[in-house]
Order: sequence, then structure tokens, then C-alpha cells
Amino acid sequence: MTATSSTRDRIVETARLLFWEHGYEATSLADVAEKSHARSGSLYHFFRTKEELLLAVLDRYVNLLWPIVIEPVFSRVTDPIERVFGILDGYRQGLVYTGCAHGCPIGNLALEVCDDLPRAREKIAKNFEGWRGWIRKCLDEAKDRFPANVNREQLAVFVLTVMEGAVMQARAHQNLEPYDASVAQLRDYINRLLAEGAQRSKSTIQ
Amino acid sequence: MTATSSTRDRIVETARLLFWEHGYEATSLADVAEKSHARSGSLYHFFRTKEELLLAVLDRYVNLLWPIVIEPVFSRVTDPIERVFGILDGYRQGLVYTGCAHGCPIGNLALEVCDDLPRAREKIAKNFEGWRGWIRKCLDEAKDRFPANVNREQLAVFVLTVMEGAVMQARAHQNLEPYDASVAQLRDYINRLLAEGAQRSKSTIQ
Repeated sequence: MTATSSTRDRIVETARLLFWEHGYEATSLADVAEKSHARSGSLYHFFRTKEELLLAVLDRYVNLLWPIVIEPVFSRVTDPIERVFGILDGYRQGLVYTGCAHGCPIGNLALEVCDDLPRAREKIAKNFEGWRGWIRKCLDEAKDRFPANVNREQLAVFVLTVMEGAVMQARAHQNLEPYDASVAQLRDYINRLLAEGAQRSKSTIQ
Repeated sequence: MTATSSTRDRIVETARLLFWEHGYEATSLADVAEKSHARSGSLYHFFRTKEELLLAVLDRYVNLLWPIVIEPVFSRVTDPIERVFGILDGYRQGLVYTGCAHGCPIGNLALEVCDDLPRAREKIAKNFEGWRGWIRKCLDEAKDRFPANVNREQLAVFVLTVMEGAVMQARAHQNLEPYDASVAQLRDYINRLLAEGAQRSKSTIQ
């Protein structure tokens, strides 16, 4: 790694954490320069505006999805349905670790900047697509266990919906209960789908 | 209405709209004064800080829940399950009307200010409680149609989870598809619960 790329990386990583902890608007380029120990000239050399820095942060999140969110679950869980719930459990652990603060960094940025920054919005959508893509892959691997008419793409959207809505309520209440309640409801729904799937394959075999 | 209360109301309503459209951090007290045609002295007479103004906005949302969100649905829909989906359809209409912008004002504020402003967080939680309370009321009215072991409080949490997560994705994609997909999945889940409930009451009657 060259000194240049390491300075740039340090700036992006610092911005990523500040945007996550305090939000995009509440973070200034001066905050980023100070916390990353970069000179302002150096920061402006890489990023002329805060929006450009945000775009780099969102690219970084695309790259972090596998090593931070997916791989730790996939390496210890093999059942595709349990992998979905393992990913959801990762967000629960994040809430426990932070005392129900911070939440999902992409979700936060989605609600804060989507209307005003179209290029950032596109990268936020790309992050959501990547996340849903892994869920969809799990659901596809379990497709023989579901009823034939289940729309797995819709179900993958729904899993992300549940994670984001549940994180939001856990933060508002500073309490894991709404998160656990929402995941329990999703589990009940998926269990019902799997039970119907098992019933059908049984009747096909008989 | 006195001149004083009308000035205060105008300031709160202006702040409500600015926070909704641009977010809390991106809105300054000077913006609020300018858009509400209030003199700064007048604004500071009512609200010494932006946080105090936010608290008044959140109180206003508690009061707006019935006339803006609930009553328009309840006045034209009587079936309790369809009332739940009618409320969700209201948010869909909001997305259509704004071109998938702005979203749920309480959800936006939840992710933006919960960690830093504890008094605002409490009022956001109160808004969520009020919303879920109406959903819970609908589910309670339909309780004989559900299986006996359905946890209606968890299900009410889940409905709010679905609305918030679905609105977020619709905004990120500037597209109603994720919203419609999420509501379709919730509908499928509730239909399965109702089908099981109908089966049970049938077997009780026989």
C-alpha cells in the first residue's frame, strides 16, 4: 500500500465512522480531517466535496458487505434459512454492542440523503441490492423447501424491510424488544412457508 | 386563537415541514424564521434551541396521527384487517405523491436524532407507540379470526417494521416496487394466519 492510498483509505474510513455515528449533515470535512489526522489540503486533494467523500464511503460499504456482514455468518452456518437468520442476528449483536445506537449505516444514509444527493442514492440502492442478493441466494438454495409459488425475490426484499424497520424501532425505544418481535414474526412466516412446502413434497412423494 | 398561539403554531408547522423535507441537521432556526415569516426574536421567544422546536414538532405529530393517518382510513373502511392495509396504503399514496421522497417523518427523525437527543428519542418512541396502538386495536377487533396463539402485540410491531423498512427501500430505489413487495408479503403472512384461524373455528363448530 502506498502512502497516498493509505492516507485516502484513512480519510474514507474516518468519514465512514463519523457518518455512521453522527450522520452525514452533522459531520463536517473539518471533523474528518481532524479525526483522520489528515491535513485539509490532503483531504481536498482526494475529495473536493463532502458528497464525493460520501460516494467513496458508500463504495467502501459495497466492499465491506462480504467480509463484515456475510462471511462471518456463512463460515459458521451452512443451512441457507439459518444463514438468513444468522445475518439478522448480526444486526442484533450490533444493537447489543452499541446499546441500540447507530443502527444500519446504509439505512441511516438512505433516509438522510436520498432526496438530495442522487449519486449517493444510487450507491445506497446498490448496497441494498447487494445485501438482498445474498438473502436471495440463500432462499434460492432452499427453494425445494418452499411452496412452489413463493416469490423469492419479494421475500428477499421483505427480509431487508424487516431488518431495517426493526433496527429503527429498537433505536427509538433503546430496547431490543421490537427487533426480537419483528424477527420472531418473520421466523413464524417463514416456518409457515416451510411447513406448507414440506406438506407438498410429502404429498408428491406419496 | 390568539395572535401568540397562531405565531407559535406557524413556526412549529414550518419547522415540521422543513425537518420532513430536508432533515433536522440540514434545517437551521434561521430557515424556520424565514419560511414562517417570524422575526428571530419571536422564534427565540418560543423556542430557545432547535431541539426545543423539534420537541414541539414531535408533540404535533402525536396530535396529527388521528386526523391525518388514521381517521381518513377508518372513515371509509370498516373491516379491521383492511384498516391495517388501508393505513399502509396511505403511506404508499404519500410515496406516489412525493415521487418516493420524504417518506415517514418519524422514521427519518428516528434514524437521524435518536442517539444524540434523548428527549426527542422519547417522543419518537411515543409516536411509534401511538401508531402501533391503532394497529393493535384493529388486530384485537379481529382476534377471533386469528389462531388463538397469535401474539397481536408482536404482530402490531411487525406491521410498523414493514411500513418503515418498505418506505426506506422505496426511497432508495425511487420506485414503489419494494414497498409493494413488502406489503404483499405481509398480506400473504396475515392471510395464512387468517386461513388457519378460519380452519380452527370451523373445526370448533363441527
